[in-house]
Amino acid sequence: MDDKFSDEVLGRARVKNNEKLASFYDDLKNYSTGALWEVANDIEPWEPAAPSVPYHWSYEVTRKHVVQSIDLVTPEEAARRVVYFSNPGALDKSACVGWLYSGIQGMKPGERAPAHAHSSSALRFIIEGKGAYTVVDHHKVPLGGNDFVITPNGVWHDHGIAEDGEISIWQDGLDIPLAKAMDASFYSLHPEGYQPIDFPIGDLPTIYGAPGLLPVNHNWDKPYSPMFKYPWDKTYEALKGLEQMTDGCEFDGIIMRYTNPINGGHVMSTMGAHMQLLRGGEHTKAHRHTGSIVYHVAKGQGYSVIGGKKFEWKEHDVFVVPSWVWHEHCNTNSKDDACLFSFNDLPTIEKMNFYREEAYTENGGHQEIVA
Amino acid sequence: MDDKFSDEVLGRARVKNNEKLASFYDDLKNYSTGALWEVANDIEPWEPAAPSVPYHWSYEVTRKHVVQSIDLVTPEEAARRVVYFSNPGALDKSACVGWLYSGIQGMKPGERAPAHAHSSSALRFIIEGKGAYTVVDHHKVPLGGNDFVITPNGVWHDHGIAEDGEISIWQDGLDIPLAKAMDASFYSLHPEGYQPIDFPIGDLPTIYGAPGLLPVNHNWDKPYSPMFKYPWDKTYEALKGLEQMTDGCEFDGIIMRYTNPINGGHVMSTMGAHMQLLRGGEHTKAHRHTGSIVYHVAKGQGYSVIGGKKFEWKEHDVFVVPSWVWHEHCNTNSKDDACLFSFNDLPTIEKMNFYREEAYTENGGHQEIVA
Amino acid sequence: MDDKFSDEVLGRARVKNNEKLASFYDDLKNYSTGALWEVANDIEPWEPAAPSVPYHWSYEVTRKHVVQSIDLVTPEEAARRVVYFSNPGALDKSACVGWLYSGIQGMKPGERAPAHAHSSSALRFIIEGKGAYTVVDHHKVPLGGNDFVITPNGVWHDHGIAEDGEISIWQDGLDIPLAKAMDASFYSLHPEGYQPIDFPIGDLPTIYGAPGLLPVNHNWDKPYSPMFKYPWDKTYEALKGLEQMTDGCEFDGIIMRYTNPINGGHVMSTMGAHMQLLRGGEHTKAHRHTGSIVYHVAKGQGYSVIGGKKFEWKEHDVFVVPSWVWHEHCNTNSKDDACLFSFNDLPTIEKMNFYREEAYTENGGHQEIVA
Amino acid sequence: MDDKFSDEVLGRARVKNNEKLASFYDDLKNYSTGALWEVANDIEPWEPAAPSVPYHWSYEVTRKHVVQSIDLVTPEEAARRVVYFSNPGALDKSACVGWLYSGIQGMKPGERAPAHAHSSSALRFIIEGKGAYTVVDHHKVPLGGNDFVITPNGVWHDHGIAEDGEISIWQDGLDIPLAKAMDASFYSLHPEGYQPIDFPIGDLPTIYGAPGLLPVNHNWDKPYSPMFKYPWDKTYEALKGLEQMTDGCEFDGIIMRYTNPINGGHVMSTMGAHMQLLRGGEHTKAHRHTGSIVYHVAKGQGYSVIGGKKFEWKEHDVFVVPSWVWHEHCNTNSKDDACLFSFNDLPTIEKMNFYREEAYTENGGHQEIVA
Repeated sequence: MDDKFSDEVLGRARVKNNEKLASFYDDLKNYSTGALWEVANDIEPWEPAAPSVPYHWSYEVTRKHVVQSIDLVTPEEAARRVVYFSNPGALDKSACVGWLYSGIQGMKPGERAPAHAHSSSALRFIIEGKGAYTVVDHHKVPLGGNDFVITPNGVWHDHGIAEDGEISIWQDGLDIPLAKAMDASFYSLHPEGYQPIDFPIGDLPTIYGAPGLLPVNHNWDKPYSPMFKYPWDKTYEALKGLEQMTDGCEFDGIIMRYTNPINGGHVMSTMGAHMQLLRGGEHTKAHRHTGSIVYHVAKGQGYSVIGGKKFEWKEHDVFVVPSWVWHEHCNTNSKDDACLFSFNDLPTIEKMNFYREEAYTENGGHQEIVA
Repeated sequence: MDDKFSDEVLGRARVKNNEKLASFYDDLKNYSTGALWEVANDIEPWEPAAPSVPYHWSYEVTRKHVVQSIDLVTPEEAARRVVYFSNPGALDKSACVGWLYSGIQGMKPGERAPAHAHSSSALRFIIEGKGAYTVVDHHKVPLGGNDFVITPNGVWHDHGIAEDGEISIWQDGLDIPLAKAMDASFYSLHPEGYQPIDFPIGDLPTIYGAPGLLPVNHNWDKPYSPMFKYPWDKTYEALKGLEQMTDGCEFDGIIMRYTNPINGGHVMSTMGAHMQLLRGGEHTKAHRHTGSIVYHVAKGQGYSVIGGKKFEWKEHDVFVVPSWVWHEHCNTNSKDDACLFSFNDLPTIEKMNFYREEAYTENGGHQEIVA
Repeated sequence: MDDKFSDEVLGRARVKNNEKLASFYDDLKNYSTGALWEVANDIEPWEPAAPSVPYHWSYEVTRKHVVQSIDLVTPEEAARRVVYFSNPGALDKSACVGWLYSGIQGMKPGERAPAHAHSSSALRFIIEGKGAYTVVDHHKVPLGGNDFVITPNGVWHDHGIAEDGEISIWQDGLDIPLAKAMDASFYSLHPEGYQPIDFPIGDLPTIYGAPGLLPVNHNWDKPYSPMFKYPWDKTYEALKGLEQMTDGCEFDGIIMRYTNPINGGHVMSTMGAHMQLLRGGEHTKAHRHTGSIVYHVAKGQGYSVIGGKKFEWKEHDVFVVPSWVWHEHCNTNSKDDACLFSFNDLPTIEKMNFYREEAYTENGGHQEIVA
Repeated sequence: MDDKFSDEVLGRARVKNNEKLASFYDDLKNYSTGALWEVANDIEPWEPAAPSVPYHWSYEVTRKHVVQSIDLVTPEEAARRVVYFSNPGALDKSACVGWLYSGIQGMKPGERAPAHAHSSSALRFIIEGKGAYTVVDHHKVPLGGNDFVITPNGVWHDHGIAEDGEISIWQDGLDIPLAKAMDASFYSLHPEGYQPIDFPIGDLPTIYGAPGLLPVNHNWDKPYSPMFKYPWDKTYEALKGLEQMTDGCEFDGIIMRYTNPINGGHVMSTMGAHMQLLRGGEHTKAHRHTGSIVYHVAKGQGYSVIGGKKFEWKEHDVFVVPSWVWHEHCNTNSKDDACLFSFNDLPTIEKMNFYREEAYTENGGHQEIVA
């Protein structure tokens, strides 16, 4: 414990126990009350100490498990065949980090999951396969590698693989733990099992995905992005363009935020997402901020130092940075760029006015690796 | 369990266990992963089932304990002498209901608590005493009975009682559990112990508390209300005026929201507050909604039926309604009105797009009392 | 012409005419075109030079004319019996200053004007009388001295005097010239002649006029203030409170803006209003800004220096400050305060990003009086 | 005059003159006042009757004049060599339509106009040439055919043609008449003549022109779009995509609005712009709305019926639709699409709450051609 964080100071609770107090505490318990000073230092810490820990999951291992699961259970039994990431510091919440859930889902050609809707916001990052699609609010969205797709809070959605497709695998990200913790989690199954498709295939990403242009007679009044899919080719192209025009960010290299083109805000109410490019050999400086981040390696290999611990990563690995933990990234390939997709709970953190950020100033901006 | 909420349907997880699966689950654990279908129905319930329970705390009892605490511990030891409400369903969070903390604080004449700041938003509802004041961001605010006072997220604040005052008691409301749960809780002590007072006493409620008028050269760019104090006399007068002009709300009688006059929004980023008046003999209809509410009886007596259970209340009692629990209120005095102050986490719920509301339609809108 | 505003510099148009050019200009005219350099310096001046001039109208004179008009024409013939202010610099627009229209209206007991609606926003400042009322969107609003009342863009409204009332007189302010200039002026007569009154008398100012409180079940989604009337007693009380708590503004003394309590914005889309108090003997410093202002002396006497010219004023006189003209105010009564009501086109100016402001720095902040 | 618009009804001014009144009017004039009923019906018409008239300018003719002007005057004399469009109904304002100015500008290789800034917002639509560029706020933007470029209110800008370029011609659109009419027109010349270029060439359209993506560390807090240039190839591609995915609009075919990607709003505070595509042989239905529109034929040929009059157009012709005038468009080429660029004052109209729209319902939605 840092000296500056001692609780033995005026202004913190430092009551010594005694018999009278013990009996007072017992009495309070009978009335479902307590003495604030007994819990104050614990419930109001000097700074955040997230229970979630920094962690890394190898795609090689998880992929093997997902493929196994396809043989072990049917979609009719399991609804969704997903191997989810269970942060060792937050096992009780089935969370990947903080209040974010994530897992890897697999489907076989010809399968289609029943349509459902829930209070949680959901997103997908596509890894591999052929013929995969998602249907969101009656719009069919074909999925390709490294595409980013959203299925917002309260919207009917289902996924499937064409009969002539291939086993398809993607990462799911949802704020299931948050919706449950906020006592606001609702779940519904579509009365007809599957949604009718009412629009041309892929319409919304085309209609809303033009640079600096919006359709005039296609009004959108929902609190999430109408794009639904952010295709990889245009995203990568945007990063390469940004690389040429700016120096980027010392903590994150060349980084862009996926936005709602209607208002420039986050793609959904409770979760945001970024794609960043680390230039050949780039090693960013460390910083920390409130909010939890789940990373997915979209391209390349390297390592990140998170809370003083080094995590090596390669394509499609997943790793997490809990709130207020120092982190920095390194692309170990000196010749080619590496790309990290990430999603987060920053929209929630920002709306609550809980966002804070700090640069690591010692040691040239780089953490000492302790593990 | 309602039939409509059976998990034995297509679209919910209903995998029967077997040996192969058990061994698969064991294997997953080794890699800090799990099978979604093992936890899905639990983490994505059909509708919210808040762990917090409806509860009522008698002021008579709590007051006795607060007065006792004044003799048992000094402010130098305890920082704040508060008896807090500990919801039997959420003991681990030190929460009153949901992610809201609340307690009753007492101070003696001549005492002044050291100035501090924290990530949680805080509010006070004043119960009794004389000479009490709070200092918020260098503005001194004198406190009177039934006044509503805010000390927003991140702002220096301290409280005290004048030398010639009397023992003073108020209710505190904070979202301490939320700030901690979001891994965003910071706590600081003022470097000088107490804040200098830089403004005329009571300036802000005067400057910003005029009806339909704002000062031109007193710019406010902070994400919370500049009024800081909402005095009881003007609030009660507003309710009486509203009573004459409208029929009110079938669920809440004559009800007003405390606002930020700069933008008409909630008083703070994460907590809102209301004052409502139940006309003589009024019995409202039941409804339920997401979001947690803490009530404080500002005037009169009556009862509320919450989740089918009847809770009688009188002045300065506190009771709580968890998220998505049916509730209705009754003023048992047929001749005089009753007033309920309440605070809530609705700003957070609304920003997340988690708000839902439902009217109780059976039995003429009134719950059957089961306890 | 100031030297810094010479047009004989590179970057301004300074083409000398010649025969070839003259013939070119003639040719262009045949095709409804012209050469920009022929008009550029005129249409893009170095800084605004409003055609409207500073002006003052004595209430004594105008009142006499209004009373005369009551005998000269009937409301059935004239619709509204108003003597309007015609700025000598803007006679063609029937404007008081800039694009703002204003006049003094009189009505006799028992009269009621037919209900109408128009694209212009309208406001009233009440001068004298008894039993006057306005009906705005089916809400009846009784009028008292120095009350400020709005009848927004597109809303049905009519005015009348009770049978047992007295001759009543008020100032009207509208942006009729603006609505016409923007080719957006519509005018309608109510199909039934008069609006039915559907609400308790005076409901809206009561429902929405509480400090820091808004009704929960009385939703307002219109682009103007729901208060409709801002009563004088509470406005004056607010100014006296502000006087105690702040030093005020060096250009305007103690000044407040009438607001829409729903969002803190201007009362209407295209016109705003202020009330300001000049302390006994106070002489403000001069400044200038874009936007036009119409002043009405609500209380006291004094003078203003506008564009170097001195205008003395007393109760209910009206005077105007055109855009970008220096102005300062002086309360000549050393013992009592003076109050100036004013309305303006600042909402329009601000939304267009046309607002600019400048302090007069020479001569201790006071203009030399040239007339 | 339509019967429904007769002024001989209760509620309109219909005072017959007489001797007493004439003398009253004379008296009022002496005090710079007037009787409202003398002007009321004129200043508050039943509906807009814009002084501007529908008009069409052939590029062939204007181009010839622009080329002539290049020989007749130097940039040093004229500052900008522009042939501007002078609406026959608004000659006094040097306006193209309503409060919008427009003209065709030409420059020779090696020329560079001195940098200036003004209160008016400006935009360009590029017609022909090679090596043209604009410098806006220290960012250099190369210009190509059918590119749309903005130089917002208050920003330094200058234009030039590379030494090895060709004569370049573009259309300018500004709201010079509006800024002047609002008494808010300021004009400045850059103290150094030309702006230094501080950024990579073409940086902003690249940085902000990605679909559904915004840079994280390139903050933009200005009230206009950071894209500055909207290139033709991507705009046309967007229209072709929209054509495949929607049926378009019955009044405007396939139409998109140029937006500020930061917030989805208009590109500038006072002027907006659209690009629309008329499918082979498409003839849209007629409607009318408040707000003035300047059209530029970006591709193809056809005609528009405006206020019952037929105007044929081909590439780079300009035509205008005044406020509240019926209009419909027809692409006369049955095999290829036609594209119309247009700019307007709708941001201003919308902010003032002056927007109204009406469909032409008779005759199958098509006007009878009267001229």
